[in-house]
Amino acid sequence: NGRSLSFESADGAFKAQVGGRLQIDAAAHNEDEIALGDGTAFRRAFLDIRGNVYENWNYRFQYDFARPSGTGENATGARGIRDAYIQYTGLTPAITVGQFKQPFGLEHLTSSLNTTFIERSLTNVFNPDRAIGLGLSHGGDNWSASAGAFGEKSEVDPGEEGNEGWGLVARGTFNPIIEKNKLIHLGAAVLHRNPEDGQLRFRERPEANISGVRLIDTGVLENVDDFQQYGLEAAAVFGPLSVQSEYINTRVQRASASTDLDFNAWYAYASYFLTGESRGYKANTGTFDRVKPNSTVGQGGIGAWELGIRFSSADLNDSSFIGGEQDNLTFGVNWYTTDNIRLSANYIKVLDVDRPGNPADGEKPDIALVRAQIDF
Amino acid sequence: NGRSLSFESADGAFKAQVGGRLQIDAAAHNEDEIALGDGTAFRRAFLDIRGNVYENWNYRFQYDFARPSGTGENATGARGIRDAYIQYTGLTPAITVGQFKQPFGLEHLTSSLNTTFIERSLTNVFNPDRAIGLGLSHGGDNWSASAGAFGEKSEVDPGEEGNEGWGLVARGTFNPIIEKNKLIHLGAAVLHRNPEDGQLRFRERPEANISGVRLIDTGVLENVDDFQQYGLEAAAVFGPLSVQSEYINTRVQRASASTDLDFNAWYAYASYFLTGESRGYKANTGTFDRVKPNSTVGQGGIGAWELGIRFSSADLNDSSFIGGEQDNLTFGVNWYTTDNIRLSANYIKVLDVDRPGNPADGEKPDIALVRAQIDF
Amino acid sequence: NGRSLSFESADGAFKAQVGGRLQIDAAAHNEDEIALGDGTAFRRAFLDIRGNVYENWNYRFQYDFARPSGTGENATGARGIRDAYIQYTGLTPAITVGQFKQPFGLEHLTSSLNTTFIERSLTNVFNPDRAIGLGLSHGGDNWSASAGAFGEKSEVDPGEEGNEGWGLVARGTFNPIIEKNKLIHLGAAVLHRNPEDGQLRFRERPEANISGVRLIDTGVLENVDDFQQYGLEAAAVFGPLSVQSEYINTRVQRASASTDLDFNAWYAYASYFLTGESRGYKANTGTFDRVKPNSTVGQGGIGAWELGIRFSSADLNDSSFIGGEQDNLTFGVNWYTTDNIRLSANYIKVLDVDRPGNPADGEKPDIALVRAQIDF
Repeated sequence: NGRSLSFESADGAFKAQVGGRLQIDAAAHNEDEIALGDGTAFRRAFLDIRGNVYENWNYRFQYDFARPSGTGENATGARGIRDAYIQYTGLTPAITVGQFKQPFGLEHLTSSLNTTFIERSLTNVFNPDRAIGLGLSHGGDNWSASAGAFGEKSEVDPGEEGNEGWGLVARGTFNPIIEKNKLIHLGAAVLHRNPEDGQLRFRERPEANISGVRLIDTGVLENVDDFQQYGLEAAAVFGPLSVQSEYINTRVQRASASTDLDFNAWYAYASYFLTGESRGYKANTGTFDRVKPNSTVGQGGIGAWELGIRFSSADLNDSSFIGGEQDNLTFGVNWYTTDNIRLSANYIKVLDVDRPGNPADGEKPDIALVRAQIDF
Repeated sequence: NGRSLSFESADGAFKAQVGGRLQIDAAAHNEDEIALGDGTAFRRAFLDIRGNVYENWNYRFQYDFARPSGTGENATGARGIRDAYIQYTGLTPAITVGQFKQPFGLEHLTSSLNTTFIERSLTNVFNPDRAIGLGLSHGGDNWSASAGAFGEKSEVDPGEEGNEGWGLVARGTFNPIIEKNKLIHLGAAVLHRNPEDGQLRFRERPEANISGVRLIDTGVLENVDDFQQYGLEAAAVFGPLSVQSEYINTRVQRASASTDLDFNAWYAYASYFLTGESRGYKANTGTFDRVKPNSTVGQGGIGAWELGIRFSSADLNDSSFIGGEQDNLTFGVNWYTTDNIRLSANYIKVLDVDRPGNPADGEKPDIALVRAQIDF
Repeated sequence: NGRSLSFESADGAFKAQVGGRLQIDAAAHNEDEIALGDGTAFRRAFLDIRGNVYENWNYRFQYDFARPSGTGENATGARGIRDAYIQYTGLTPAITVGQFKQPFGLEHLTSSLNTTFIERSLTNVFNPDRAIGLGLSHGGDNWSASAGAFGEKSEVDPGEEGNEGWGLVARGTFNPIIEKNKLIHLGAAVLHRNPEDGQLRFRERPEANISGVRLIDTGVLENVDDFQQYGLEAAAVFGPLSVQSEYINTRVQRASASTDLDFNAWYAYASYFLTGESRGYKANTGTFDRVKPNSTVGQGGIGAWELGIRFSSADLNDSSFIGGEQDNLTFGVNWYTTDNIRLSANYIKVLDVDRPGNPADGEKPDIALVRAQIDF
């Protein structure tokens, strides 16, 4: 981003950059029946080193120092390695070895720095973790394609003497329109995975991360042979206005005695820049990018101001199986004071949870969530 | 400090710096009744990234990689985020969001790199941790003022579904005299805090950190409504001679059945530079700063040599409540071989522990403590 | 290595460098009786900051972010501080304070970036950990000498109230021949150590680190007074051909009721560069160094290609005491695509395990192990 501590050797053959990101959150909850603790936390605290050697070789190492929130059953996240890979761009497609995001999902693949709302939507329940694997990727002025074979994320203990899970993932995107401040994005992705030990779990927080409570949760599914996902993406930008939507379907195949399961989730949102900016976009990866404010706070400007509204829904119920169905409505405001500092406030209204027999059934809490964010 | 890996963009709009600090300790104990283990440890191992963007925006990210010492009941410290904040200096006062030191206590706010003795005195039992919050600060040529509202430190699990504790803190300092190598510092601070879950604990090691034993310890106080602290600070520098003293009073308010408690601690010390240097000081933050030796070891010089003596006392007894009262006498010598490398040796004599009914009562161990320190 | 993010002040008095290393592993096992889990892992993920101030002062701070593999009984490795020291080179010998490798063993002291095979041989069962200590070192054009006194590694809890273990170590190396691409290396080292709490354990994985299983293991030896080791090293380089061998003997002295124990291990290997390179070497530390390929992949070249074969054996049996004896044969191929990127594949054949009464007795698994490595 031009701001980081960076270095280039005299002949330009070696480039390196040290940076990071901080996301500082606070939340207050209007609880329903279930207790949701108010408080503060670092959501992400990344160190990020990346570089380029001998033209065709890239590397990146990223570590998140933020402590996991929640404990035991409720724990999520963890201090840990994020992106950490070696990439060779001397062939088409480019080859990447190491840990990186599995190519699935528009909101998932867009950096957490650049998502319109503070947390990703309920579809995030199906987004795959980063994992160690081998990836191929290529892209042009109005398209991108990527695929990979992956083991488990590095935090999964390799010393457990079962064999690791593995998966195959592929994604393509296309832009029928791509002009300055005008964009249509279409995308699709598929995923196949054999989980380790035949176990699988889907669960998700209500679009806020201070409380550890998940209102929907399949529990640990046993006897899983494999599962498949497909995702559909659409987004459009017309100057300051943007709309975006995704749908993800997940089908779990289980051995004899256990029934197969079919889950899905979707969201749709719109955002508008009061100050006239447009969302950034990278066509060759098919992801949204940084917003560049027209003016900068502290340099005589007021930065960029954006308003957003999102509806989001995830359904982990399938006939007699009850993991819960949840609908959320979220209002957001973002103040981009500079091109690397952003202050955000979200109000999340849980519209309903349909999870008969569980304490979460019928819960309708409200959450006020704020974030201060810098990347450097 | 001019030594770190730093970077400034061509137009000066972006500055960043990567550095750190290492403190390597070893201790031997002349035990009394209670066993105190001899050994070695990293006391602090910081990575530190800080920068400035668009003139008015500062950021800092600091992580301590040193492992906690002690386990279970005796554990202290932890790998974890230290300073991590975004600051806007375009207004008066400056606004800081994130995690940073709560403005309370002269020895506490002076960097661990620049305290005269290896560990802070027994008043440290009352010093608040860094916490996530919002701060205001300003200062001039002979004064400083700062205040903030804080939640808990980032390591406190936000996913526990009680609400986080919170507190308000303010501090002011004034210099009736401030000339080259001549200084009088006066300061005062107040703190109010509601702890999480009504629980509170004060305990402190005997000014050395290799052993995990605390000779004074209130245990976990239950039913705490809130507590208040005030602190008074005075220090003076006359050329190579320096004197410094602090007093902290803590009053704990507890719900009906539990009695209120009143604790206090103080210290006083003097130090003298055999080689003629004076202690550094920053008036606009009201804290002591780096010592710059008149000559450098390895460049034909002998560095700076400083001798110090400190008396320090903490009283956690209040009528029938017995947390223990401890008095320490400490002798110290510091060898500043360069302006960023310091070798220190302290001899700590525990004069007495008054804690009837506890094994620590009457303990009088001696501790020999050495440290090698670099900041880069 | 000239590639890292480095900085030098205008007058050359201050130099600093930020870098790191990534080692990404995957393994598949042809199991015998004991289950060995296939999978992927980061073997090492280092951040590395080093610098030089005022000519004669060096410092280094290195942290490994890779998660330990294995859990509980089988756990090994850990996120933790690696090298972290301050060094003064203004005297002869140079003085180092902090944590660094204890000077024992050629393969041990050669960086994990530059070992010919992916993992060190079975002699690694006796290699001492890095520890906090004080070291002296010196070396010339064809010799090196180093010695040190060490406590425990920083990860050992200093708060346990027993006294830390300590040890003394010394090593010397000599090169009767040292010319361009032609080298004979001879070395010897001795070690004496008093372990903490009289406890000691030797165990080792089969030259691959994805599975947590050790086929040889003394278990925790109690009542250990102290133990001594000596090691002998020999290596030769003749152009593209290299041979290397080590022998380590360990004698454990135990208190009255427990018998003394005598263990040993050795390895020998040969490697050959198909592309004509020679192994790098540093005479003043007596260790092997980076390979510089004659051509670079992505710059019209094919990099350097090296083939290797190693026999390795460790014997933890002594008369009636059975810790296990293991023999391994390893075939390796390394592809140095650039001077800082290396892809390696090893095939490890466990020839035999002699450990009567233990499930590991007679085990003969095969392991296919691959690694992608970059240092930056």
